[in-house]
Amino acid sequence: MRVNAEPAVVRGFRFSGVSAGLKKAAGAKDLGLIVADAPSPATAVFSANHVKAAPIYVTMDHIRSGRLQAVVANSGCANSFTGKPGLKLAKDSCAIAAKEIGCEAKLVVPSSTGVIGHLYDLEKFAVGVREAAKELRPEGMEDFARAIMTTDTRPKIASVKIRMAGAEVTIAGVAKGAGMISPKMATMLAYLVTDAAVSSTQLKAALKAALPNSFNAITVDGDMSTNDTVILMASGAAGNRTPSRKDLDAFNQGVEAVSAALARELVYDGEGATKLVTVEVKGAKSSADAERCARQIANSPLVKTAFFGNDPNVGRILMAAGSSGAKVESDRLVLAIAGVKVAARGALLVDALPAAAEKMRGREFKVNLDLKLGSATATILTCDLSYDYVKINAEYTT
Amino acid sequence: MRVNAEPAVVRGFRFSGVSAGLKKAAGAKDLGLIVADAPSPATAVFSANHVKAAPIYVTMDHIRSGRLQAVVANSGCANSFTGKPGLKLAKDSCAIAAKEIGCEAKLVVPSSTGVIGHLYDLEKFAVGVREAAKELRPEGMEDFARAIMTTDTRPKIASVKIRMAGAEVTIAGVAKGAGMISPKMATMLAYLVTDAAVSSTQLKAALKAALPNSFNAITVDGDMSTNDTVILMASGAAGNRTPSRKDLDAFNQGVEAVSAALARELVYDGEGATKLVTVEVKGAKSSADAERCARQIANSPLVKTAFFGNDPNVGRILMAAGSSGAKVESDRLVLAIAGVKVAARGALLVDALPAAAEKMRGREFKVNLDLKLGSATATILTCDLSYDYVKINAEYTT
Repeated sequence: MRVNAEPAVVRGFRFSGVSAGLKKAAGAKDLGLIVADAPSPATAVFSANHVKAAPIYVTMDHIRSGRLQAVVANSGCANSFTGKPGLKLAKDSCAIAAKEIGCEAKLVVPSSTGVIGHLYDLEKFAVGVREAAKELRPEGMEDFARAIMTTDTRPKIASVKIRMAGAEVTIAGVAKGAGMISPKMATMLAYLVTDAAVSSTQLKAALKAALPNSFNAITVDGDMSTNDTVILMASGAAGNRTPSRKDLDAFNQGVEAVSAALARELVYDGEGATKLVTVEVKGAKSSADAERCARQIANSPLVKTAFFGNDPNVGRILMAAGSSGAKVESDRLVLAIAGVKVAARGALLVDALPAAAEKMRGREFKVNLDLKLGSATATILTCDLSYDYVKINAEYTT
Repeated sequence: MRVNAEPAVVRGFRFSGVSAGLKKAAGAKDLGLIVADAPSPATAVFSANHVKAAPIYVTMDHIRSGRLQAVVANSGCANSFTGKPGLKLAKDSCAIAAKEIGCEAKLVVPSSTGVIGHLYDLEKFAVGVREAAKELRPEGMEDFARAIMTTDTRPKIASVKIRMAGAEVTIAGVAKGAGMISPKMATMLAYLVTDAAVSSTQLKAALKAALPNSFNAITVDGDMSTNDTVILMASGAAGNRTPSRKDLDAFNQGVEAVSAALARELVYDGEGATKLVTVEVKGAKSSADAERCARQIANSPLVKTAFFGNDPNVGRILMAAGSSGAKVESDRLVLAIAGVKVAARGALLVDALPAAAEKMRGREFKVNLDLKLGSATATILTCDLSYDYVKINAEYTT
């Protein structure tokens, strides 16, 4: 499926992004709105972190109805670890946005990303929302994408067009965040919108199906934010018939394609990342084994520093595989780095290492580990661990 | 208990360390021997990594008898991921050492640390063993400690003296390795020797009791080597009576004190480490919760880079605690960094942050997290994540 990275127009939705003075940098966009023309079927998934930020609790409450009309999102302040005043702030923010938009507060969900332990200025926020409401337009997707950026170096947008149930349907998404991480305890946020006429139950099924191969298949450093949120809303403006099972399959594929493209962008733009690495494990005894093995390799600081150094370090990859808890037999496995076979039949293929090192110099490569013990597979996208990761995360002081 | 960091003499044991040309650096010590005057009760624990190096398999086999006479250890080559030739090499090495020492090969255990995927030169090794056997002396502990160093910046030695069962007993240990990690897939190795007259069953109990608060309570980067080994041998030369339960308690405490001192040294000398941080979690609902919470904080790259930057980053610590799977309630917990309370009752104590940042400048500090949900506790020693960690691990190419 062809995924477009340009801003898309999705019938039934308008977008905006303005500067409300919540970020320190003067004039930087830090407040965005997504508004549907009417209350629309919607679904959401959240961080599994036990420590959740205030906007998450409010979103969980408001999404229960399966319908939303708007998202109001800010950067510059995460409204996390802010107790009862934080909850009140998140609710008040919804009320303010609802008033400007002309809908019920329960149809608005808030998202925040930025420094933790602090509240944002509600007055500045209100002025920003008023301006953002005025700026709403169908072509405003990139403005919104910019308003939610923190350490992101570029806005992240993806869209696909599919035919379903007699209509052309667009599925588009916007995301921010360098994986699960960010220097000020910020966040992975993603918003997907579509003009398809589908129910909230169908949206829920589509998002659930998309996660394993998109947002749940990436890592920057294995850390998990308190604010992670993915929201999917459908305006129904495409006017399609009631979708058949086959239509829904096409729709689900579209949601997965957009989610996967955004997830990939998050890793590509990971903090300090100079390389995008796809870790593919196959031949595992079980799916659980495949996944824990791939994750352990993708999260190992030793493996990630080796990626940064263009070092085809077989030992570190096998160390990570072996310590994952997955069944691994070193005599059976076959390992390839950047397309070059570097280990097989219990031995390092020393002569192949220079070629692998050379191929690792690219911006992207794969690590393929075949455990030869079964048929389960798993794929995780990760990035390298560079000096800049340390710089970005150590040189900021609260 | 007073722990001494100077080389100790332990009756019934001799030590040596020589240069056999296995390391690239000319003249660097890379082969060491520990030899008991006679076959002695012994016990060992190993890496839980599913990928284990050849010397581990040989040691597992030889230790089954509960008796050892010698350890032959080399640096410069890990003899890991070397298949059957590696196993043969490890066995041949024991035979060569046994011949020089004058004991059965089954009474010798081999240890290797260094690059993986390669075999060392058995001829050079044999010449080195012959020389090392000649150099054996009761005062040779530091020579041995130097022979097993890889990225270690200094030899690691600890000893205690206790009274037990009518005799003065010495328990001493030597270790190497920057935690579970090392740039060339090297290893944590630790050897403890004592002149106490105790059985291998008693040694096993002592080592088992010592692990939770020593070698199993440290992390440099959460990675686990394939070669990790801890060995404990007792010569019986102290001539004590059969130990009572109370004597064994004193002995166990001594083994734990030496183990903890060596473990602490490993983290203090962790790759690129500029700070030693003790993460103490209390008030957890269960021991499992306390441990996973402490480990997640201690292993989080975001937390570790904040340590490096003297940043009292409450959000990252709570994010790690919340993502550990442990039960955490942000409204109840109390967090102190470097002795300064920085979060309580669901709020960040903003005014306290400058004082905490100032105290973090020290070489050592504590992170104290009280979850206020129960009575379980856990302590993990960790270090910061610095530019030098990336440098050490990225700028080496196989």
